[in-house]
Amino acid sequence: MKEIKLNITKPHSVVITSTASKLNFWLEQKKLNRLFIITDENVDSIYKDYFNLVQHKVIGKYVIKSGEESKNIDTIMDIYQHILKLNIDRKSTIVSFGGGVVGDIAGFIASTFKRGTNLLHVPTTVVAQTDSSIGGKNGFNFGGVKNIIGTFYQPDLVYIDINILKTLDYKYFKEGIAEVIKYGFSMDKNLFEFIENNKRSIKEREIDKLLHIITECVKLKASIVEEDELDLGKRHILNFGHTIGHAIESISDFRVRHGEAVAIGMVYESYIALKNKYIMQQELERLIKILRYFELPIDFEIDNYTTFKENIVKDKKNVDNCIKIVLPQSIGHAIITSDIKLETIIQYIQEFNRRVL
Amino acid sequence: MKEIKLNITKPHSVVITSTASKLNFWLEQKKLNRLFIITDENVDSIYKDYFNLVQHKVIGKYVIKSGEESKNIDTIMDIYQHILKLNIDRKSTIVSFGGGVVGDIAGFIASTFKRGTNLLHVPTTVVAQTDSSIGGKNGFNFGGVKNIIGTFYQPDLVYIDINILKTLDYKYFKEGIAEVIKYGFSMDKNLFEFIENNKRSIKEREIDKLLHIITECVKLKASIVEEDELDLGKRHILNFGHTIGHAIESISDFRVRHGEAVAIGMVYESYIALKNKYIMQQELERLIKILRYFELPIDFEIDNYTTFKENIVKDKKNVDNCIKIVLPQSIGHAIITSDIKLETIIQYIQEFNRRVL
Repeated sequence: MKEIKLNITKPHSVVITSTASKLNFWLEQKKLNRLFIITDENVDSIYKDYFNLVQHKVIGKYVIKSGEESKNIDTIMDIYQHILKLNIDRKSTIVSFGGGVVGDIAGFIASTFKRGTNLLHVPTTVVAQTDSSIGGKNGFNFGGVKNIIGTFYQPDLVYIDINILKTLDYKYFKEGIAEVIKYGFSMDKNLFEFIENNKRSIKEREIDKLLHIITECVKLKASIVEEDELDLGKRHILNFGHTIGHAIESISDFRVRHGEAVAIGMVYESYIALKNKYIMQQELERLIKILRYFELPIDFEIDNYTTFKENIVKDKKNVDNCIKIVLPQSIGHAIITSDIKLETIIQYIQEFNRRVL
Repeated sequence: MKEIKLNITKPHSVVITSTASKLNFWLEQKKLNRLFIITDENVDSIYKDYFNLVQHKVIGKYVIKSGEESKNIDTIMDIYQHILKLNIDRKSTIVSFGGGVVGDIAGFIASTFKRGTNLLHVPTTVVAQTDSSIGGKNGFNFGGVKNIIGTFYQPDLVYIDINILKTLDYKYFKEGIAEVIKYGFSMDKNLFEFIENNKRSIKEREIDKLLHIITECVKLKASIVEEDELDLGKRHILNFGHTIGHAIESISDFRVRHGEAVAIGMVYESYIALKNKYIMQQELERLIKILRYFELPIDFEIDNYTTFKENIVKDKKNVDNCIKIVLPQSIGHAIITSDIKLETIIQYIQEFNRRVL
């Protein structure tokens, strides 16, 4: 078991373990009571009994339909309605038990209900365990724009149980691996090479290998969040693959899943980096090779570049109409730049697509 | 002109002046640009030109229907829709130009749109200038519960123009005076006696008298917010009159306005204090006398005590079903207690009503 402490406005711990049995201990430690669990149909169907050992602390549960489509105002309002009847107060604990969608919804509810309740994340996907459960971001989609409404709201505890990943559908698992590869390729060469060297056992979900990569990712995320809790600058480094990825996710109407879109985005952004002589051909090839090993996509046929451009510009991270993009400089290092013109981005995407398709 | 600085997570200034002409200077100082103004019909009808001097910085305006009924999810969603089209980014500035309702809505929008934009409050009522614009609370009503959904989100600047109070309808003005009396009676004897000694010129809205009482209230509020930004304890002292007041506001379906409800709440809570031998008869009488001078109500006929009790319990400030109430100990001092039973509160309300009606 590992405990990683985040020293931010609301200091809290991320616990990484491979069992549910330590949950009660941590709830006691952090004085978390009166749990209201928000989960989704997929997770609920497999882990209905996950909270059995702490059942006396559970006051209710809300099961959302799985998938990004649930992340809308209707779900939020329905949960408000639901918990209003339960007399939930500020010391009650909203629990997210699921992936990024569940975490985003639960985080927004906890942040806004009575101006803030306790919040516990029990993330069940690689993406949620390595990224979305850490750092306090939440939100929902509105007007066709992803996460356009949301807040920063830190949890009181993040309880990561690696063992849950064993039952994760491979399509979700590989999405998360895309994010892990992102951490390695843009921030930590050792991690990237660990993935290359252990790709088979990671794919087979050996607990010790998963424990290692998830712990490393949590540490990386935690260090960035500590430096830039409110996403004012440095945190943007985590968006490698995301500038282009988000836009692809949007124009595909979310048929391309987040992790897949990030994989594609990383390849395009690395190709732009290559064209700007930041990285070498061979480094891009290593990225593509490991993505392909995990059966992740590396390109996307864009039908409508006008909509694509609009979606890049609409991204909430862009201020004063400047496109921020993260470009790798070598494996393990990346920079944030606003120097690349939108037209150049599109030109290189088209060039890359002609090349490999 | 006075500048009061709040040293909290997001340090910012409250500027108290009696002219619109300094606004541009302060916008420059605080680097606030791209203003999107949220206001209401009343304010807009009188002060359509208020932002003329900074018109080049204004990118849009949204006018809500005046009144508490607007503080709902439909208004919030409509504003999201509206600003989505304007490509507002995190460095744009949401401006509240109005009273508490406008401030609450604008604060929630600024807090949640793209996870937080800049926020400028230009409060136009006594309540907003002395209370709601300071401390970062926002929210809207849902399921019949006031401010049940909301966040803490600090502004970048509060610009208080006392001169605006000259055109404030007396029914709003006196509501604010109820809050000013609250500050005096529960926290600052000098302020209470200043109001007693200058009641006529305050009623006539002499600028120097208003400047004094509003500055004193802002200082009191600022000091409490600095000690307890997230309303975890000390800040509750500001709720003198509010435990009972909020419930009366709710059961009257908001026909009793907030300030009026606070006036009534203060009298009942002071009567409870008297019955507990905290204050003297004569002190309660001074409170009633000054409230009556400003034509504020001092009691309310409660038809349905069951609904009344439900409303007190539902208040988001109550944790673990304990009723927190603020009781004065002498003029200028009050304590927070959870020792008074709900039944006792009701018994004394009934006793007081039999006495004076």
